[in-house]
Amino acid sequence: MNWPNHVEKILSKLDIALPIIQAPMAGGFTTPELIAAVSNAGGLGSIGAALLTPESLCEIIQATRALTSKSFSVNLFAPLKYERSEEKIQKINEIMAVYRQELNISPSITADIKQPISFEEQLEAVLSEKIKIISFTFGTPGSEILRKLKNHQIIVIGTATTVKEAILLEKLGYDIIVAQGSEAGGHRGTFLDSFENSMIGTMALVPQMVDAVNIPVIAAGGIMDSRGLEAAIILGACAVQMGTAFLTCPEAGTHPKHKAAILEGTEEHTKITSVFSGRPARGIRNRFMDEMEKYQNSLPDYPLQQSLTSSIRKKAAELNREEFLALWAGQGIRLSQSKPAAQLLLELMSRLTIFNKTNNK
Amino acid sequence: MNWPNHVEKILSKLDIALPIIQAPMAGGFTTPELIAAVSNAGGLGSIGAALLTPESLCEIIQATRALTSKSFSVNLFAPLKYERSEEKIQKINEIMAVYRQELNISPSITADIKQPISFEEQLEAVLSEKIKIISFTFGTPGSEILRKLKNHQIIVIGTATTVKEAILLEKLGYDIIVAQGSEAGGHRGTFLDSFENSMIGTMALVPQMVDAVNIPVIAAGGIMDSRGLEAAIILGACAVQMGTAFLTCPEAGTHPKHKAAILEGTEEHTKITSVFSGRPARGIRNRFMDEMEKYQNSLPDYPLQQSLTSSIRKKAAELNREEFLALWAGQGIRLSQSKPAAQLLLELMSRLTIFNKTNNK
Repeated sequence: MNWPNHVEKILSKLDIALPIIQAPMAGGFTTPELIAAVSNAGGLGSIGAALLTPESLCEIIQATRALTSKSFSVNLFAPLKYERSEEKIQKINEIMAVYRQELNISPSITADIKQPISFEEQLEAVLSEKIKIISFTFGTPGSEILRKLKNHQIIVIGTATTVKEAILLEKLGYDIIVAQGSEAGGHRGTFLDSFENSMIGTMALVPQMVDAVNIPVIAAGGIMDSRGLEAAIILGACAVQMGTAFLTCPEAGTHPKHKAAILEGTEEHTKITSVFSGRPARGIRNRFMDEMEKYQNSLPDYPLQQSLTSSIRKKAAELNREEFLALWAGQGIRLSQSKPAAQLLLELMSRLTIFNKTNNK
Repeated sequence: MNWPNHVEKILSKLDIALPIIQAPMAGGFTTPELIAAVSNAGGLGSIGAALLTPESLCEIIQATRALTSKSFSVNLFAPLKYERSEEKIQKINEIMAVYRQELNISPSITADIKQPISFEEQLEAVLSEKIKIISFTFGTPGSEILRKLKNHQIIVIGTATTVKEAILLEKLGYDIIVAQGSEAGGHRGTFLDSFENSMIGTMALVPQMVDAVNIPVIAAGGIMDSRGLEAAIILGACAVQMGTAFLTCPEAGTHPKHKAAILEGTEEHTKITSVFSGRPARGIRNRFMDEMEKYQNSLPDYPLQQSLTSSIRKKAAELNREEFLALWAGQGIRLSQSKPAAQLLLELMSRLTIFNKTNNK
C-alpha cells in the first residue's frame, strides 16, 4: 500500500498495518474471536466494554490475548450524570408491562434496575490488564483520569459528533478523535450540543473536523467497503472505524435475527431512537421502536431505561423475537456481507483503487 | 486531469470540462452571472427555476446566454398534489400576524396566496428556449412529459434521497440521478418514503445508489471542496452538485445577510425545517425557524405556506432582517468562502490530489 502521510502516522502510532478500526460496539457483539480476527488481519480490534462488569472485561481481554498477540483497544462510556425519577420509571414500566407479559417475564418493579456498573472499576480493570489504547464515548471522564491514562502512556481516543466537541477533546489532551457522522449505527457520542443539532453527515463532518484540530481524525459512519475507506482518507481522515460491516461477521456476537435484519435491511430502515437505553442510537426499526416512539420524551435517563429494557431484550433474544431487540445498524446497511472478518479486510484492501501498491503516486 | 471512466462519460454526455454542477437553487440565487461563470469555467451552471414565472425564466435563460455560449441546465419542481385547508391557512396567518406587524406589512388574508406558477407553462418556456438539460426535484412530472422531453433529445436529471427513489427514476427513463445526501442545504427532494426515513448521509447514500442503478449518479450534500469532489468520485459518483459553496460567490443573488450567515455559520447551526415553504429544507436556524417550529405539523401544504411567508421574507430582505429569511445552507458550511465562482472552480481543480494531471494511474 502507498498510504498518504497522515495515514502512515496513525498506523505507526497504533502499531497496526491497516487503517481500519473495528468499532467498539457495546452489548456482546465484540467477541474475542472478532477482535482477534481483526487485529490478526492488521486492523485494530476493539472491545465494546461499556456494559461489561470489570470481571467480564478482564475475561474478554484475556480470552482475546489467547487468540492474538497484536494490540486491540477497549472502549468505555464516559460516566454520565443522570436523574433518577421514580415517576418516569413507574410510568415506563407500566407502559412496557405488555411486552413483559407477552414475553412471559415477571412484571418489573423499580428494584429491577441494576446498579450501574462502576466506571472507575471498569477503568481499573483496563489498567490492570495493561491495555494500551482506550477510547471513550459520551464525552470525557474528566481531566484527572485523562492525566492518569497519560501517565500510563495509554493512547486515548475520543468520540466527537461536531467540530466543537473535537476542539474540546483536543484541548483536553486526547490523542485521536473519532468523527462520528450521522450515518453511524448504535449510540450517538454527542456530549455538548443537542443530539438533534449534532447529526452531521460524515462527508461534511470529516473535512471540517480535520481543518479544526491538529490531532488525527478517524472517520466513522456509513463506511462499509474500500470506496468508503478511500473516500474517508481523501477527506482527511487517517483511518476509518467500521461497526455495521463487522456485525454480520460470523465471529461477531450478534444475534442471528439481528444479523439477518442487517443483511436484508435497506438504508431507509434505520432510525435514531432512545427507547432502548434512554439515549439516542441508530438501529433498524422494529415493533418496540415504533410502539415506544411516542414515549421518547418521557423516558428515564440513561442508563436507567437501558436497565429497564434489558430483561425484555434478553428474553426476546432467547425466543428469537427480533421485534424487541435493539437492532443497531448504520445507514450503509445495503453493503453488508456475512464474511469472516479477515476476509472482509482482505477484500477491502484488494479493492482499493487509489492507495494500492501499483499506484506510484 | 485523469478522471476515471465513469467521470469521463458524464463530462462528454453533458459537454462539460469539470465534473461540477452548480446546484439549481430556487429563490433568486442563480443569477445569469453565477450560471455563466460556472459554465464558462467548465462546470455546469443551473437555473433554479421552480419559483420563476415562464416570462422571468425566459429572461434569465436569455440573459445567461448573453454571458456564455456553454450549456447550462434548468431545474423545475415536479408538480405536487396539495390540499388547500382554509382552516390551516387561517390559523397560520393568525400565528404569523405578529411578524407582519413587526415588519409593518399589512395583515395577510387568504387572498394573499398567489396562484401557484403553472408547471406546464414553465416547461413550455424551457422547451421554447431549447434548453438541453433539465432536472427535477420533488419526484417526477409523469411519463407523458418524460416522453416529450426524450423526443426533444433533452437530458433529464432526477433527484433521489433513497436508493428506492433512484431505482424508480431509472425505470422511468431518467438519464442521470442526483443522490441528495442528508447534509444538503435547501429543499429535500424526497418523494417516496417519509422525509424522516430519507435522511441518508452522502457517504452512505452514494455507493449504495451506484450499486443499485446503471445510470450515472451525481453526489450532492456536504461537498464543498476538492476533498469532497474526489471522495464522491471514489464512492462511485460521476460528478458532484454543490449548492452552499456557490451561495457565497459574489455572482450569486444571495442576500448579503444570508451570505454572512453562511460564512460565519458552523455545521451544527443548520436544521431541517418546513416553516418557510411547507416542505422540509435545510437552512441556518434563526428566529422565524425557532419560533415557528412548534407549528411544523399544522402548516398548510407546499406551495401554500411558501406563498404565505413570501411577503414576510421579501420585506425582511429589504430591511436586512435575517431573522426572517430562509437562510438555506448545507452541513459543509464551515468550508464556505466568498470567492468568485471561476476562482472557486480553479482552486478546486488545483487542489486535487488523486485525479490531477501528474498522477499517471
